Amino acid sequence: MNILVINCGSSSLKFQLIDSETEKCIAKGLCERIGIEGSRITYTPDGGEKEQTVTPMPDHTEAIRLVLEALTNPKTGVVKSLDEIGAVGHRIVHGGEKFAASTIITDEVMKAIEECNDLAPLHNPANLIGINACKKLMPTTPMVAVFDTAFHQTMPEEAYMYGLPYEYYEKYKIRRYGFHGTSHSYVSRKAAEVLDKKYEDLKIIVCHLGNGASVSAVKNGKCVDTSMGLTPLEGLIMGTRSGDIDPAIMEFIAHKEGKNIDEIMTVLNKKSGVYGLSNNLSSDFRDLEDGYNRGDEHCIRTMKTYCYRVAKYIGSYVAAMNGVDVICFTAGIGENAPLVRSLVCEHLGFLGVSIDEDANHKRGEEIAISTPDSKTTVMVIPTNEELAIARETVSLVK
Amino acid sequence: MNILVINCGSSSLKFQLIDSETEKCIAKGLCERIGIEGSRITYTPDGGEKEQTVTPMPDHTEAIRLVLEALTNPKTGVVKSLDEIGAVGHRIVHGGEKFAASTIITDEVMKAIEECNDLAPLHNPANLIGINACKKLMPTTPMVAVFDTAFHQTMPEEAYMYGLPYEYYEKYKIRRYGFHGTSHSYVSRKAAEVLDKKYEDLKIIVCHLGNGASVSAVKNGKCVDTSMGLTPLEGLIMGTRSGDIDPAIMEFIAHKEGKNIDEIMTVLNKKSGVYGLSNNLSSDFRDLEDGYNRGDEHCIRTMKTYCYRVAKYIGSYVAAMNGVDVICFTAGIGENAPLVRSLVCEHLGFLGVSIDEDANHKRGEEIAISTPDSKTTVMVIPTNEELAIARETVSLVK
Repeated sequence: MNILVINCGSSSLKFQLIDSETEKCIAKGLCERIGIEGSRITYTPDGGEKEQTVTPMPDHTEAIRLVLEALTNPKTGVVKSLDEIGAVGHRIVHGGEKFAASTIITDEVMKAIEECNDLAPLHNPANLIGINACKKLMPTTPMVAVFDTAFHQTMPEEAYMYGLPYEYYEKYKIRRYGFHGTSHSYVSRKAAEVLDKKYEDLKIIVCHLGNGASVSAVKNGKCVDTSMGLTPLEGLIMGTRSGDIDPAIMEFIAHKEGKNIDEIMTVLNKKSGVYGLSNNLSSDFRDLEDGYNRGDEHCIRTMKTYCYRVAKYIGSYVAAMNGVDVICFTAGIGENAPLVRSLVCEHLGFLGVSIDEDANHKRGEEIAISTPDSKTTVMVIPTNEELAIARETVSLVK
Repeated sequence: MNILVINCGSSSLKFQLIDSETEKCIAKGLCERIGIEGSRITYTPDGGEKEQTVTPMPDHTEAIRLVLEALTNPKTGVVKSLDEIGAVGHRIVHGGEKFAASTIITDEVMKAIEECNDLAPLHNPANLIGINACKKLMPTTPMVAVFDTAFHQTMPEEAYMYGLPYEYYEKYKIRRYGFHGTSHSYVSRKAAEVLDKKYEDLKIIVCHLGNGASVSAVKNGKCVDTSMGLTPLEGLIMGTRSGDIDPAIMEFIAHKEGKNIDEIMTVLNKKSGVYGLSNNLSSDFRDLEDGYNRGDEHCIRTMKTYCYRVAKYIGSYVAAMNGVDVICFTAGIGENAPLVRSLVCEHLGFLGVSIDEDANHKRGEEIAISTPDSKTTVMVIPTNEELAIARETVSLVK
């Protein structure tokens, strides 16, 4: 069955068409600047040329129409008609406490997703727009919602509660949710598979290090803790997000800079992270790694602080699970920055971690980068959120 | 030499007179409600009765005058005249990056402390008032400033930098400072002494669990990380302070509750922590422990979440130091709550920690509570910040 995977933002839309039997991506692309002047669609069929078309997209329905047109285009398309698309899988950012698993989209589900809008005001409304646009154009095709938060719903209370007035949890559901769940789930399962061990027998820590970044602790196949919180701001230092700070810093900056709370949130989300820490040098780790190797003080500080934070989270999750068998690196930086993996693992001698630097410098597939005698296995596992969404979708519509 | 140790708050003043030869406290007491109606002084000479006197204290100078009067009182005093007080040691909360050690108080030092007011607007000005009051009444007695932050000044850059715009560090010195330094220093040294090992050879984690609470990592005699940050709000869940939260929660609460940033800070400092998490039941661990043993759900949630956070910090500091030899519990809760120590150590099997529950239930002096075969030694070490301040003071004035 061909599954169309949709990841819909407020002005963008990423898509992949995946053949669920071969698990291959048949075509993929991106609509940008939806509802804004200069909208464009990029489309790449498997094995074919990437093509970009600048064309008006006043709304998401028009964007989806263009996606379906590209997929069925007689020349460059990959299917003959929409009938060959068996189901649509939608990535939904926030499922709150309502969704601990993926689900077939019904009117009730749409309503429940809308009730989570409060928790992700930038993302959930956009996700819903994407669902509605698809429903208009493919009214009889089954659709599935796959939540970024669902995998983390197994966390125990002591991991998801903050030291805040309990009424905030009761009234507003303020708690840790965690994100990147599809990736943490996919990568931890894959690690067990590659090692040929039972997923339910392992203690796994997944470091999803992309522009957004989070760590999770997966014990016996269940997530028991993760570094992102109520929102994706908490935890690791990210591309432009601060991650953990003393909450009192917000008041301090407010008074010093005459900023209100929304302006401070913009700083913490867009001007901080490795970008801010490197004195606005770059949020791109290739630049930071170059600078580090050149001896640039801003890059050295940034790389060391970034990796130290990752190592501390690993240590805390070893305590959370009372041990660890496998540590996985994934996502853009996790997969492609051997320096980051080296610097993180330097702190992990106490776990008996020993890295094979030759393996660490290889690229591509799933690979163990620890030496055979390393007491804890360290791996690089490329993530594939779209495939994970397609799998979830198939399993529900079959 | 007799050392007067002063810990001066905005409306209170704690004091102890310590004989530096015997290291005994000769007399101690507390002035409360300074500058407020109903001021009172409590005074207890060693081996004598506690006496409380309600008497007007319009300012800190009058409070100090009453302290000195009590100490030299012909009937209940402990010295004949002020000449028998060799020096005064003042606890100063924030030394910023200026003070990495205690120092004799001069006009320049006073000015430098004042320059740190910004970083501790509630505490440093009160500390300075205490110094000025003492100088007026004991103009020739040498005085020493002992900083709560000084011990942590050895932290490396990767431990003290946040993922924030670098200009905030340059312009405002926003970074991790840490507090309770006198206690972390005293307790970690004491642990080495009790174990008869070289302080410089050990990796020690100190859990200072009082109404305020912090953890520190002390490697080879130097602090390398600690859980409090720019202010004492960050880190562990405390009596009424939240500790770590997703910074975006502040914006969320601001919008939900119509609160401004100062009002939110009041919630995070005064209405949160175990008090808030237990649904406003109590910030006193005796109440929480009772409730836990009774099976009260609020108390169980609070105790488990509190201890889980401590265990995660221990894990992260094991990564910070790449190992640990000794874990110390200290301060009100750390010294007196065997349940807290048990629940924390349940997470530490990966360190080879094994607890002797009989030893864990003893009270009083320095004691190892781990079994002899425990790979990591766990200890209870009663803290004594006043004695530590007195020692620092003597070492500088001698």
